[in-house]
Amino acid sequence: MERTKPLEMEFWFDFGSSYSYLSVMRIEQAATRHAVKVSWQPFLLGPIFQSFGWNSSPFVLQKEKGEYVQKDMARQCEKYGIPWKMPSQFPRLAVLPLRVMLVAENQPWAPEFAKLVMMSNFHLDRDINSRDVIAALLTELDQPAADIVGQAQTEPIKNRLRKQTEIAKDRQVFGAPTFFVRGEMFWGNDRLDDALLFASAQSS
Amino acid sequence: MERTKPLEMEFWFDFGSSYSYLSVMRIEQAATRHAVKVSWQPFLLGPIFQSFGWNSSPFVLQKEKGEYVQKDMARQCEKYGIPWKMPSQFPRLAVLPLRVMLVAENQPWAPEFAKLVMMSNFHLDRDINSRDVIAALLTELDQPAADIVGQAQTEPIKNRLRKQTEIAKDRQVFGAPTFFVRGEMFWGNDRLDDALLFASAQSS
Repeated sequence: MERTKPLEMEFWFDFGSSYSYLSVMRIEQAATRHAVKVSWQPFLLGPIFQSFGWNSSPFVLQKEKGEYVQKDMARQCEKYGIPWKMPSQFPRLAVLPLRVMLVAENQPWAPEFAKLVMMSNFHLDRDINSRDVIAALLTELDQPAADIVGQAQTEPIKNRLRKQTEIAKDRQVFGAPTFFVRGEMFWGNDRLDDALLFASAQSS
Repeated sequence: MERTKPLEMEFWFDFGSSYSYLSVMRIEQAATRHAVKVSWQPFLLGPIFQSFGWNSSPFVLQKEKGEYVQKDMARQCEKYGIPWKMPSQFPRLAVLPLRVMLVAENQPWAPEFAKLVMMSNFHLDRDINSRDVIAALLTELDQPAADIVGQAQTEPIKNRLRKQTEIAKDRQVFGAPTFFVRGEMFWGNDRLDDALLFASAQSS
């Protein structure tokens, strides 16, 4: 069969999600290795959890799992060589930086911005929903911070993030990170390599 | 530091658990590769879920996750070269074969029995809580089936399985499979290799 599309993988993430942290830090290098293009898909996990009747993360609602996840995250970060410090607030709201990711769509600095946001949350324990924190990260990337933060607060961008979350719900996303390759769903950082292998397989 | 104990890993499992299926099929070969001894620890996942206020598996209670898990299990089984057929009844009660595992403690045929039980559930779609099914598997292993099934139904063995489940709860086990190495918990088939690496590391 003729190949009509480049190899691509959708990456659905929320900056408040701990296992999304691992994938944000790893994905560009891993995808390059498999010659797969990453399509970054920000969304809000909170409304998805609310649709299940949960008022917070399962890591908060289920004490045993929550305590385990802290140990698991520390070990996983050590394995991947990523710094880790449990945020003093969890899960953190990340509406502003997720909106910035929509402004940054297809910009070469977007993946680097995502990494800086994640490091701010899970290593430096900063409030990633703060205008000042996000503006500083954009400045660090030589981007016009005030312009971009301004755009991120416009109605079209606000609506796009709402729409993203609706799409995630319609596609039965129930957690983050979630990867889609040719319509197939892969859930969790532990499936990143499987998803990339599936994406790079020629047959479709 | 002097090493006083052989390298060992506890493996907590329920024959009704789909991800326990993957680990039961893989664990002996993987552990041998790491020169780690497996300590098989049967328990009932149902009472653990009930203690969280759930009346079934999260794969049943949460439709989106349940549908995903079927696809994920099919892919994982293909990856590991293990046959897979979604059981017509899920989760299946597995009280009898879990009790047999306690009778079989430290017997060389125990891991092979565990594999046969899992294949009966997740490949052949048989009722693994049936006396006839379990007796047939024991006969296949040249074991005295009537004797063993009889022993499995005695009060001391029934109490031991209850006790196992209590120990799991006290140790904050919240799912299966769960591995313990030197007191550290590792949850899920995806952590089997990490747990074995941790077990085979000399420093403690």
